[in-house]
Amino acid sequence: MNYADFARQLETINGIPITAFKEDTKEIDWEGVKENIEFLINNGLKVVVPSGNTSEFYAMTLEEAKETTKRIVEYVNGRAIVVVGIGYSVETAIDLGKHAADCGADAVMIHMPIHPYITKEGAIDYFKNIIEALPIPSLIYFKDPHVSDSVLAELAPLEKLVGVKYSVNDLPRFKKTVSDIPKEHNIAWICGTAEKWAPYFFHAGAKGFTSGLVNIYPEKSLELLNALQVNDLETVWKVWHEVLPFEDLRAKYNNGNNVVVIKEAMELVGLRAGVTREPVAALNAEDKEAIGQLIKQWGLQRSEEVLS
Amino acid sequence: MNYADFARQLETINGIPITAFKEDTKEIDWEGVKENIEFLINNGLKVVVPSGNTSEFYAMTLEEAKETTKRIVEYVNGRAIVVVGIGYSVETAIDLGKHAADCGADAVMIHMPIHPYITKEGAIDYFKNIIEALPIPSLIYFKDPHVSDSVLAELAPLEKLVGVKYSVNDLPRFKKTVSDIPKEHNIAWICGTAEKWAPYFFHAGAKGFTSGLVNIYPEKSLELLNALQVNDLETVWKVWHEVLPFEDLRAKYNNGNNVVVIKEAMELVGLRAGVTREPVAALNAEDKEAIGQLIKQWGLQRSEEVLS
Repeated sequence: MNYADFARQLETINGIPITAFKEDTKEIDWEGVKENIEFLINNGLKVVVPSGNTSEFYAMTLEEAKETTKRIVEYVNGRAIVVVGIGYSVETAIDLGKHAADCGADAVMIHMPIHPYITKEGAIDYFKNIIEALPIPSLIYFKDPHVSDSVLAELAPLEKLVGVKYSVNDLPRFKKTVSDIPKEHNIAWICGTAEKWAPYFFHAGAKGFTSGLVNIYPEKSLELLNALQVNDLETVWKVWHEVLPFEDLRAKYNNGNNVVVIKEAMELVGLRAGVTREPVAALNAEDKEAIGQLIKQWGLQRSEEVLS
Repeated sequence: MNYADFARQLETINGIPITAFKEDTKEIDWEGVKENIEFLINNGLKVVVPSGNTSEFYAMTLEEAKETTKRIVEYVNGRAIVVVGIGYSVETAIDLGKHAADCGADAVMIHMPIHPYITKEGAIDYFKNIIEALPIPSLIYFKDPHVSDSVLAELAPLEKLVGVKYSVNDLPRFKKTVSDIPKEHNIAWICGTAEKWAPYFFHAGAKGFTSGLVNIYPEKSLELLNALQVNDLETVWKVWHEVLPFEDLRAKYNNGNNVVVIKEAMELVGLRAGVTREPVAALNAEDKEAIGQLIKQWGLQRSEEVLS
């Protein structure tokens, strides 16, 4: 594999698919998962990232995470790049990563360690041990503001580190890190905080962004991506204003609403998302009303062709 | 079981044992784990909490966590109460909790969900589903300031919820919660932020505190507990000043040093702790120097009798 070429392919929307759970049992609704993947691919998504936070990775057992990987690689069937989220202890992450490779996934995204105590050298060891143990390339999901960016600088020379999903909304810090790490290391810099922050991160050197919005309104995410790529600022800010109420609704309750807003919006327009698992419950009446209004305002009426 | 009586037994030091890892392979050093448990019991600890954060729960695989539970219950052998930390997804937490019960553990401590998105109703469902599925009583480890204390108020009537390890250092908030929840629910209120914060939490209604210090200097932890119980404030503040430099060293790097300070201190006095796993690395030279000085200042010279 040419890692540099691969990194360039990641510089687009990194779509995080929701995981459909059945309303009654909260079991995974595999038909729903499949329909959602078809929806993403049919709408032009090039990079799909199962086992992300918006996929409710931490509400699944390890066995469920593995089964999701296996099935989503099958469903995608080469039509997009599949980057699988992995995490937990080093040993568990390597186990999940090897399984992803065995299933035919293209790369992994290593979550920030869930361990409450992290030192700089310890974080370097954590990521490095995982990256070097896997046969497929890795992205790092960098989201803890207390961990130094020098961790990324130390790891950047690793050939198999191909990207960073940067999720600390500190633009000067991000800009400095992108500038300081040599271009020859071929890191794909991805804004990890979606459409709301993408314009600022692109301005500071990002070349792609993550998205949960793609699960419901991929046209808007792609419109934003295209506008950012050609620096059409008029369109950028138009789309940004359109999607802001949605992203702000997701951000409520310290992001508690992150996934449930997407899922309930999907159900409103006839997409199959089901419910969220604990520790996230259904929207309250006020937020339900707000998402209903927004769907109406967006004019989202999906025809059967788009859904299938 | 009389849950009220059991809750009263938790109102003491909840000692979180470190997990000894071998220096070369970072495998669990079972001899070290056993020696540490003996040390805690011989020094008068009444409540032992394996799979806490200071035990590096999140740096272990699920299989290792289960094996640790099994062995520590055996090592303790009825000489103290064993409360086992459990967490991850609801299904995984229930699996870990049932395993703990099967091993003969007395109770579980449910970690705050690691899921990055938490809603109030979702948190209630998370804890309730786990508490009700287990045959042994539960404590909640409450540490996310963004989650409302009304979650605790909702859950307090559950008979099998016997305690809260409260780890948000907001004393007025804690006081109000303790006051608002009826005494008849028999909740053991435990300060979850150890010796440094215990005096303030006791003043606000706590009746016990967690401790990592017990792994190295249990006499001091017990001196503090006894002084707090009889409201001997002179001794309270004396001990508090003595342990503060240790706790402050543990708090460095956004608590990155939490466990490694204990482990390196233990090694310095001849206790068997080994190394920390990723994402925590060894102390830097400055911190190593500081812990060496403190051990000297404390006059910690352990005789063979205390160690065995």
